[in-house]
Amino acid sequence: MAPKAQTYKGMKDYLPREMRLRQYIIATLSDVAERYGFEPMQTPIVEYEATLAGKLGDDEKLIYRLQYGDDKLALRYDQTVSLARVVGQYPNEIVFPFRRYAVGPSYRGERQQRGRYREFYQFDLDIVGVDSRVADAEVVAVIVEALSRLGFTGFKVLLNHREVLSALARVVGVVDEQASQVYRAVDKFDKIGADGVRNDLLKSGLDADAAAKIVEFVATEGDSQTVLAMMRELLKDDLRGLAAVEDLSAVVQLLDQMGIAVDGYAVAPRLARGLSYYTGLVFEAVIENPPIGSLLGGGRYDKLIGAFAGREVPTVGTAFGIERLQIVMTELGLQPPIDSAPRVYVTLFSPEQIADSLALAQELRAAGLPVVTALAPDKLGKQFKEADQKGVPYALVLGPDEIARGEVVVKNLRSGEQQSVPRDRVLALVQE
Amino acid sequence: MAPKAQTYKGMKDYLPREMRLRQYIIATLSDVAERYGFEPMQTPIVEYEATLAGKLGDDEKLIYRLQYGDDKLALRYDQTVSLARVVGQYPNEIVFPFRRYAVGPSYRGERQQRGRYREFYQFDLDIVGVDSRVADAEVVAVIVEALSRLGFTGFKVLLNHREVLSALARVVGVVDEQASQVYRAVDKFDKIGADGVRNDLLKSGLDADAAAKIVEFVATEGDSQTVLAMMRELLKDDLRGLAAVEDLSAVVQLLDQMGIAVDGYAVAPRLARGLSYYTGLVFEAVIENPPIGSLLGGGRYDKLIGAFAGREVPTVGTAFGIERLQIVMTELGLQPPIDSAPRVYVTLFSPEQIADSLALAQELRAAGLPVVTALAPDKLGKQFKEADQKGVPYALVLGPDEIARGEVVVKNLRSGEQQSVPRDRVLALVQE
Repeated sequence: MAPKAQTYKGMKDYLPREMRLRQYIIATLSDVAERYGFEPMQTPIVEYEATLAGKLGDDEKLIYRLQYGDDKLALRYDQTVSLARVVGQYPNEIVFPFRRYAVGPSYRGERQQRGRYREFYQFDLDIVGVDSRVADAEVVAVIVEALSRLGFTGFKVLLNHREVLSALARVVGVVDEQASQVYRAVDKFDKIGADGVRNDLLKSGLDADAAAKIVEFVATEGDSQTVLAMMRELLKDDLRGLAAVEDLSAVVQLLDQMGIAVDGYAVAPRLARGLSYYTGLVFEAVIENPPIGSLLGGGRYDKLIGAFAGREVPTVGTAFGIERLQIVMTELGLQPPIDSAPRVYVTLFSPEQIADSLALAQELRAAGLPVVTALAPDKLGKQFKEADQKGVPYALVLGPDEIARGEVVVKNLRSGEQQSVPRDRVLALVQE
Repeated sequence: MAPKAQTYKGMKDYLPREMRLRQYIIATLSDVAERYGFEPMQTPIVEYEATLAGKLGDDEKLIYRLQYGDDKLALRYDQTVSLARVVGQYPNEIVFPFRRYAVGPSYRGERQQRGRYREFYQFDLDIVGVDSRVADAEVVAVIVEALSRLGFTGFKVLLNHREVLSALARVVGVVDEQASQVYRAVDKFDKIGADGVRNDLLKSGLDADAAAKIVEFVATEGDSQTVLAMMRELLKDDLRGLAAVEDLSAVVQLLDQMGIAVDGYAVAPRLARGLSYYTGLVFEAVIENPPIGSLLGGGRYDKLIGAFAGREVPTVGTAFGIERLQIVMTELGLQPPIDSAPRVYVTLFSPEQIADSLALAQELRAAGLPVVTALAPDKLGKQFKEADQKGVPYALVLGPDEIARGEVVVKNLRSGEQQSVPRDRVLALVQE
């Protein structure tokens, strides 16, 4: 009996149609990253368990661990820890600031739900080794440009600063231990609204006045300068908070100077981002219309990348989730501008014409065209059917008459039309 | 204390310089495969253990196994078993003949030695679902074209047929149980020479006459037609053997008809290929001059891909080992024709010039140029040094005088020369 053919649950196979969209996404992101001077890097998917363990808190149980001989190993659950390892391991090879991108799979034993996979691919990019607003702005600029190139419209990169939220907590009188509850409540603003956040804050033990001030702060919308002015006013007595507002303001100015369209980003007090490791700018790209929500996020995290180097290595970065982009692009009907699937199917008319037909196929391939050939001189009807099933738009026929005339029959498999054209016109015709 | 930064032994990190060569290899192989109508596919690296186990014989112990909850899993050790699973799992989505390529890592706990890694990337391509000489020839043609495009010269794809070797064993009177020992001995011809093979055969219990005939057969060299004639003569009383010779002959004729240069391939009676799963054509690409040896191999294996479908699914295919190509290309000094590393470093002269400098960087990026910007207006000498350390050839300076004149200072960091040029000439200058 044949063994059962099944993909491990929570993981996914990609057949050609879906795979082409993935390739297009990765090629586009790579091209934009390269233009901004990011360089490619790759690390193994398997790491020593000691490298990966102890960093995920409650999520440690999601790590895939394995043992080989005496080696305790694990599959990486992101590419950030491996970046930190590399920064610690190659002090002489890496020149800071180090702009690197990396694309590949990571693994988490997530509970299965729609759009969440146990094997997921991320396209990471980070600027490592410098605390700079220009670096912050460049990462945001890459995101805006990459999403535009992929065909997204109506998206915005929301910007905030971790220290602005910390200062907010201080100025309304929240004690340190409650601050993380404030961030968590703020983070849910888009889901539960102003009243929901207020309730959460009251439940966390904040008084009504503090809760009201926080809700008013996070609900503020408007152009970036208006929001920044509100922040400056509210935080005017908190020096660290004011410095953070000026950081945000500098990033906004740099984005403007880089020519990033003003509707591509906005300062958003409600943006908290869950991860506690952010230390400065935080951002999130969202599609508001249609209301699809978050595409990706990131920010400045100055404490993490130096973990193996034994010193602080300031870093700003982001990660594009390939599956998320793929799902949303499919929902929105966004497609690669050029279909790279085969354009032409070269039939084999009979054994005597195989040589001429293969020579024609080679000629078209040399011109860069993706060409499928028949693999046996079966009945033409069968060959046309195979081509059509594969979605190839044109079939070419070289029979003895065509060869004698120096022509080729080009059959449009969608319309059924066919015409005999001079051999040197075939390429132009099928590329139309 | 910082945790120890170390890559799991037997696996390897790729920093940008090496990674660019890998990207170039994969992009070139993909482009050639697409022209031949192969389509991309991707499967998870983690499979159920039951999918992977029981196929490697003595090498089963090299499999990385893991358990998550109750799920017994393993890391794939090649991409072929996953292809067989896919063929069994998606009978309605896959149209035969199915030409697919796939690139990604596989895992084997190999003993560490030079050029052999526990995480290794393969670029697989297969034509699934048809027993066709045209298919056999196309896979060989892809290999010849891909290696040429990568810059290899002086290579040859050696061709043989599994059934030719079986017939040889029969005609010299070897009993079935000894046949695999004959293949093993033949396979070592390039390493141990004619005398070595003879000794191995005698040790396996063959008589002197049988051993002499085999050695004479495998030592035959010459143009393909001469070798095929020798095969026909020796196997003239073995019908299956003769049919195999005609298969080989047909592949050679098709390669010629496809315009593949005749010095790119050769019929080689000595080629056995270790794996017992081959059923028809076998091939191996070798570089003879300089004597680097095998680059990759493959062949027809009609029994394996149907394992999950529960029926025979004839298949021919090959796998390019990315690390092997990378090592040999580096040894031979083969490089990508275009260096995609950043060409230009845009300095930041002082805080007042940041806006103009970033606008210049954006302009060059929009033209497709990879550009690194300085991230702070440090001393120019420091900025030049950073650019030079990164291997960026040109640095641009926009000071107040240049801005006033509409010019840019272009400094060649290798020669030290610098000149002030009109802004619209910068792109042409740095692309030279």
